[in-house]
Amino acid sequence: MPKATINDIAKKLNISTSTVSRALSEHPEVSKKTRDRVKQIAQEMNYRPNIIAQSLQRGHSKIIGVLVPQVRHIFFAEVMAGISDVMEKSGYSVLICQSNEKYENEVKNVETLIQQRIAGLLVSISEETKNYDHFKQILENKIPLVMFDRICSQIHTSSVTTDDYKGAYNIIEHLIKKGYKRIAHLAGFSTMEIAKQRILGYKNALQKYKIPINEKLIIENGLNEEDGAKGFLELYNNLEEKPDAIFAVSDPVAIGAFHEIKKMGLKIPEDIALTGFSNNPNTLMIEPALTTVHQPAYEIGKVAAELLLDKIINKNEEIIQKILSTEIIIRQST
Amino acid sequence: MPKATINDIAKKLNISTSTVSRALSEHPEVSKKTRDRVKQIAQEMNYRPNIIAQSLQRGHSKIIGVLVPQVRHIFFAEVMAGISDVMEKSGYSVLICQSNEKYENEVKNVETLIQQRIAGLLVSISEETKNYDHFKQILENKIPLVMFDRICSQIHTSSVTTDDYKGAYNIIEHLIKKGYKRIAHLAGFSTMEIAKQRILGYKNALQKYKIPINEKLIIENGLNEEDGAKGFLELYNNLEEKPDAIFAVSDPVAIGAFHEIKKMGLKIPEDIALTGFSNNPNTLMIEPALTTVHQPAYEIGKVAAELLLDKIINKNEEIIQKILSTEIIIRQST
Repeated sequence: MPKATINDIAKKLNISTSTVSRALSEHPEVSKKTRDRVKQIAQEMNYRPNIIAQSLQRGHSKIIGVLVPQVRHIFFAEVMAGISDVMEKSGYSVLICQSNEKYENEVKNVETLIQQRIAGLLVSISEETKNYDHFKQILENKIPLVMFDRICSQIHTSSVTTDDYKGAYNIIEHLIKKGYKRIAHLAGFSTMEIAKQRILGYKNALQKYKIPINEKLIIENGLNEEDGAKGFLELYNNLEEKPDAIFAVSDPVAIGAFHEIKKMGLKIPEDIALTGFSNNPNTLMIEPALTTVHQPAYEIGKVAAELLLDKIINKNEEIIQKILSTEIIIRQST
Repeated sequence: MPKATINDIAKKLNISTSTVSRALSEHPEVSKKTRDRVKQIAQEMNYRPNIIAQSLQRGHSKIIGVLVPQVRHIFFAEVMAGISDVMEKSGYSVLICQSNEKYENEVKNVETLIQQRIAGLLVSISEETKNYDHFKQILENKIPLVMFDRICSQIHTSSVTTDDYKGAYNIIEHLIKKGYKRIAHLAGFSTMEIAKQRILGYKNALQKYKIPINEKLIIENGLNEEDGAKGFLELYNNLEEKPDAIFAVSDPVAIGAFHEIKKMGLKIPEDIALTGFSNNPNTLMIEPALTTVHQPAYEIGKVAAELLLDKIINKNEEIIQKILSTEIIIRQST
């Protein structure tokens, strides 16, 4: 059955299209009787308002976009849960796009979301992204933008992060106090703010305890499981003096290293200690369970969604940067 | 800076808007010189074509929608990876919506996606869904639709599933051959096709080996981790004669039960054997590692995306139902 238009309803009731249109939007100048009659016929004829046309008029839709690296990364899946819960209650639909860690996809996704006339956007940038013009476009188009976790300091907007510096600092301090001496860091690319802060926390904790920084013990690589496996092998095989502990920039990186360590027949934590960052549910499942830094993923999503709604609904143009605190979770891997 | 329109470009060059429009779409009747000039000015003025208006004309966009229960469920995160890889290559953007297992959200998501004029839709239904009118709307709107994994037999469309019946049958046969006698089933709601097929496989395997079916050993519950924890406690605490093995309808359900079993101090597989369904990566991380049925999640996404593109690009209206084969993965939990 083809969809009925406002025209069809007008013809059927022998009234003007503008009366139909006003009746459907509950305009007070149209009598209650006419409004009810129009709505009844609209329902009978399976009329569906053209929401695209409506959002062209209004300038935006009741839809918010979320751009993440990949939902496969359990941290982002958890953040999504927090975002969805808030948006669901406020009657907003959520469209999710994945960059799959590629700059090109990210730019394309931003284009798509702008063209969908989203009411606002939540973003965590890809590993590859070093140019931020696509986010400038978002701001130029006056679309409310909140960044979370993987933010970039070049884009002046509200954001939600966790205290990456302190999380890293505290976990290194824990390792030092446990007696580890050659602590390596499987780092993220320092072009990313979160990776930069974690490297900084690592270095400053070592300096505090007068342990010299050895650049050979730092490998800058990605944030995902395959990067952890690759990074660990590169680090371990190339060093004559092996590290006795590893601080991985993320839990997936730690899990990637974990599998390689097991394959080599090394014991955790006796031969080598291992720590992650995020406290993903699976860090509790491996044996030994992973010492890590708790990042409140669900909370990050919830707070970011609330900040965005405040911009959309209350037109709050203030820039608010929330930094949630982290907590180190000590388990059997250290 | 406000966005430039075709009008602005026309004024600037002192030509008609239709010439600008035709120049931008590379119309051969416009001279190369004019086309180049228009494109240059468009770029300088930061002109952005109104893709919404274009898709209203064309009837659809280069965007496909994916509707899943939740990306937190690692199976769907993996399926998403398969879908994204195919769509990326074909130049389609992917918008993901989550139902969070709620019928109401699913209906709203379908509305949103229709209104976004998506070119096609991939769906795995929520646990709650028992009415399928929203999917009928999709078909009535002539939007290509492919269902995957959680399909419903009432909607006549192409689909990609795995052989749920055989997967369940084979794993029960494995348990019987291992000597387990009281095999319980933490089942999904039998209103769902996948849950129904897995219950059927469970029952038929028992019958084949002349083990009487005991309805008390079957608990119909959800497909997620919390359902597994709850279902296991309900089952275990209410039975005088305890089961010696548990076949969980999904890996998350098995993981939920796993934690409760550990809390009770029971040993797996000595006191009770445990099996799942999907072969999610984390089934390999728990100790003992979980015996499960391998479902090729990435492949399901890839095949579903290919079927959908065939409908969109080649207008293939044929109904194709692909049933991918499963494989049982025997590990230490049985």
